[in-house]
Amino acid sequence: MSEPSRILRKQIGNFLEDFVPGQTFRHKGGKTVTEGLFSIFTEFTMTTNPLAKNARYGRAYGFRGLVVPPGLVMLVAFSQTVEDVSENARANLEYVDMRFGVPVYVGDTIESTSVVLGVTPSSRDKSLGVVHVQTTGRNQHDEVVLTYERKVQVWKNDVDITVVKAATEVTPVPCQLRLPAYDAAVPYRSLAHLSNADTYFEDFVAGDVIEHSRGRTMTSEHIALTAMLDNTSQVHCNQYMIDQNPERFVGGQLIIFGGIPFQLCLGLSCPDVADNSLGDLVYTTGRHSAPLFAGDTVFASTEIVATRDLPDRPDLGALDTILRGHKFITRDGASEKVEIFYLERSIAVKRRLHYA
Amino acid sequence: MSEPSRILRKQIGNFLEDFVPGQTFRHKGGKTVTEGLFSIFTEFTMTTNPLAKNARYGRAYGFRGLVVPPGLVMLVAFSQTVEDVSENARANLEYVDMRFGVPVYVGDTIESTSVVLGVTPSSRDKSLGVVHVQTTGRNQHDEVVLTYERKVQVWKNDVDITVVKAATEVTPVPCQLRLPAYDAAVPYRSLAHLSNADTYFEDFVAGDVIEHSRGRTMTSEHIALTAMLDNTSQVHCNQYMIDQNPERFVGGQLIIFGGIPFQLCLGLSCPDVADNSLGDLVYTTGRHSAPLFAGDTVFASTEIVATRDLPDRPDLGALDTILRGHKFITRDGASEKVEIFYLERSIAVKRRLHYA
Amino acid sequence: MSEPSRILRKQIGNFLEDFVPGQTFRHKGGKTVTEGLFSIFTEFTMTTNPLAKNARYGRAYGFRGLVVPPGLVMLVAFSQTVEDVSENARANLEYVDMRFGVPVYVGDTIESTSVVLGVTPSSRDKSLGVVHVQTTGRNQHDEVVLTYERKVQVWKNDVDITVVKAATEVTPVPCQLRLPAYDAAVPYRSLAHLSNADTYFEDFVAGDVIEHSRGRTMTSEHIALTAMLDNTSQVHCNQYMIDQNPERFVGGQLIIFGGIPFQLCLGLSCPDVADNSLGDLVYTTGRHSAPLFAGDTVFASTEIVATRDLPDRPDLGALDTILRGHKFITRDGASEKVEIFYLERSIAVKRRLHYA
Repeated sequence: MSEPSRILRKQIGNFLEDFVPGQTFRHKGGKTVTEGLFSIFTEFTMTTNPLAKNARYGRAYGFRGLVVPPGLVMLVAFSQTVEDVSENARANLEYVDMRFGVPVYVGDTIESTSVVLGVTPSSRDKSLGVVHVQTTGRNQHDEVVLTYERKVQVWKNDVDITVVKAATEVTPVPCQLRLPAYDAAVPYRSLAHLSNADTYFEDFVAGDVIEHSRGRTMTSEHIALTAMLDNTSQVHCNQYMIDQNPERFVGGQLIIFGGIPFQLCLGLSCPDVADNSLGDLVYTTGRHSAPLFAGDTVFASTEIVATRDLPDRPDLGALDTILRGHKFITRDGASEKVEIFYLERSIAVKRRLHYA
Repeated sequence: MSEPSRILRKQIGNFLEDFVPGQTFRHKGGKTVTEGLFSIFTEFTMTTNPLAKNARYGRAYGFRGLVVPPGLVMLVAFSQTVEDVSENARANLEYVDMRFGVPVYVGDTIESTSVVLGVTPSSRDKSLGVVHVQTTGRNQHDEVVLTYERKVQVWKNDVDITVVKAATEVTPVPCQLRLPAYDAAVPYRSLAHLSNADTYFEDFVAGDVIEHSRGRTMTSEHIALTAMLDNTSQVHCNQYMIDQNPERFVGGQLIIFGGIPFQLCLGLSCPDVADNSLGDLVYTTGRHSAPLFAGDTVFASTEIVATRDLPDRPDLGALDTILRGHKFITRDGASEKVEIFYLERSIAVKRRLHYA
Repeated sequence: MSEPSRILRKQIGNFLEDFVPGQTFRHKGGKTVTEGLFSIFTEFTMTTNPLAKNARYGRAYGFRGLVVPPGLVMLVAFSQTVEDVSENARANLEYVDMRFGVPVYVGDTIESTSVVLGVTPSSRDKSLGVVHVQTTGRNQHDEVVLTYERKVQVWKNDVDITVVKAATEVTPVPCQLRLPAYDAAVPYRSLAHLSNADTYFEDFVAGDVIEHSRGRTMTSEHIALTAMLDNTSQVHCNQYMIDQNPERFVGGQLIIFGGIPFQLCLGLSCPDVADNSLGDLVYTTGRHSAPLFAGDTVFASTEIVATRDLPDRPDLGALDTILRGHKFITRDGASEKVEIFYLERSIAVKRRLHYA
């Protein structure tokens, strides 16, 4: 190779000083949900809701076919924002008010846009600050499938640049869970054996904590799963980079993309709380409490905070829950439980009287 | 979190004393075969039959498209029964008289039901007994795709409960391999190059043993594959549980779900015996002879026991075979062959005169 | 098992002395591109071209849906030839003049044929020689999707057989990249945010070398990926075989099928050079320069050799590039860069004036 004119290496993503409240990102790519993506993720999470496994059941319920689970809807919409919003993030701080809209099916294409709501420089560390965005995912018919806010801690590129705290008014995005209507003519009872018999709305008691019985050990599979979501952040897939400077990286090894335990905890909870759900209403707040690595085993629990009516839907009720994911580490020869994920989650659940 | 009212942890599955001859299970979930599931499993097995790889070939032969291989049909139907039948099993003893029915295609939904045929307490160990079930898988048109019997060794929950040996009459399930008719107008010869030239019915000699040339090393991939089949038994995916008490678990490590070597051995045999097959007729009996772990390499061989006519199908013949899977372990510094799988398998194979 | 009449073990593939110039192979199998295969490979490569991710974008551009990336077209066509051409190869020497034809979509079936162009015994080692073939992949409508030549070093079965150098005239296969026509009525600008803004034809300067920023660590996933392409060569998937005789095998461990870094390097280059490409025109020459193993991290760079017009397509331009893949090894405590892949690649890229 003759001497090149220039050797280029692009900088990817934005730094703290690049974000301006009111700025809009129309994120790159978009993503069509194929049967490949659908099956790999739905099964990885070990979800048990027949809407995501059995097309006959889904169609009987008035959906067009297999229903993409809310966790996967979230991941497909969220992952498109990573390059623009959190490529140069130090930590994901919080998801806020994540609301689901129209159902998503195999074959749908989701495209995401984000608005910068605010930028807040850190008072303690002048190389960091918090970026607050609102992200909305829409399908090919321009219907909203998901909207949420997110706070993420982002590095400055130039430590000496002054970043002023600023914010803009958030314009709420209309988004409400849309489900097929209840139809008394549908033989729901003939399908009731396909889901658990003891997880209808009437079965839940506020105050209960359900420890979900299944654990799932993570392997290096996370690398391919993360790429499948178009999240190419190097801390998930570039071991060579970690090896050059292990002290710089959390755990000195590849760290698992938070979206993966997010989905997995949703799936692990399914047999106990979401088998008879028709959808998730809202994730009020969520955060990743501790990192996850290949070799860790993920567990989950759900606390039933409240049960309440859904005015428009007498056939359903809402469960307000807290989903917690955890793992165990060994400290001083003893096993110590460590929370890795926290999600305040409201679920729309079928009432037995109407469906079973 | 305030002090919970109750901390719940559900018990999953049935114990020996829960089974009653005549009892019927309509298993949960059901499963629609997506292109994701299809491709991952079909390719994992390294099957070479063009019916499962080439839709042009499949349609020319009168099928609707890519044909789901019998091993995957078995897995999809079988896995749905695990929670109800073998969640608390100590060992899978035997598959009996597994017969295939109508073809299965991508997009089909399979749902399984089981009938308890018998319960036999162990004479040697009062904490165990054998449960004998008959399972049938049907598609969305209520056609039978598969039926079989299974014997599995199950734990008691309460060792002191007396379980009486009991059985019920088995009502045979009508199920016969259904294939597209032979059509002399179809240019089968123009497709003959797509399969092996030396595996037509006329090529097989009773008494031959064919050692299949390919081996396949298993990795931690088995965890995701097993979840994809809705088998969430913890011995396959929860390393933390194993680590707490390694002596209790076979091999002190995650054990691979038997359905995986079952499928893999079928695929490894394909180039030598099933490339020119239109389907498997029956698995008379099958068992897992030894456990399999990540790191093991799987091999297979097929013994041709007999060749016989198929009265309704002069264009085909039946091969009665024994498929054996094996691996190697090191004992005293030497490599020792260990059988891991045994299956008496009858295959419907094309006759050269009609097809090539 | 009674004493078998015969124990058979088939020899697979051809040896040097089996190849005759002019000989034609109609390879076995064929392959229908399912959504499973499509998603797993497209995402594994971390490609960012929206034609392969976003069906809305693909259809707006006049394609029928998601477009199978050229790397995957190559792999599907190539892998079918392995058993007949390179089962007993020692090394893959070179790909030559690989030209792409009609677009490939999910649901298409690709079947490959090869013609032996020449056989050249080695002057240095009488157990080896070079086989030169021309391979063409066609879809179910008999349209050419890909054609290329390949040189591979193959073992003799019988070292004492004399193989004479021979060749035949190559009959060129008509094959040219076919793309939907430019249509000024299509609102391309409304889609421009879905790809990078700085990778239009006008942005490239001959002489530049672009170091692609992403690296991807390989894991044991390569075994399943390789089987998914019907390449069952044992050096990729049979660890037991390697363990019996580690000195005989490169690296003493499973070696990764070259098609995998081939695809991965194409994907890693995408954000910087092929985001706004409508297809690859030709791979003039390509080779695998060093082996790749699980645990290695793959990087890539693209040298822009030249930019030129495409006479029939004023809306596009051609980039002539060299794609190089590399990894790092540790030698004497220092990190050493090792080239693993080399490809002279011409890409058809959109012009900003027409599309953005």
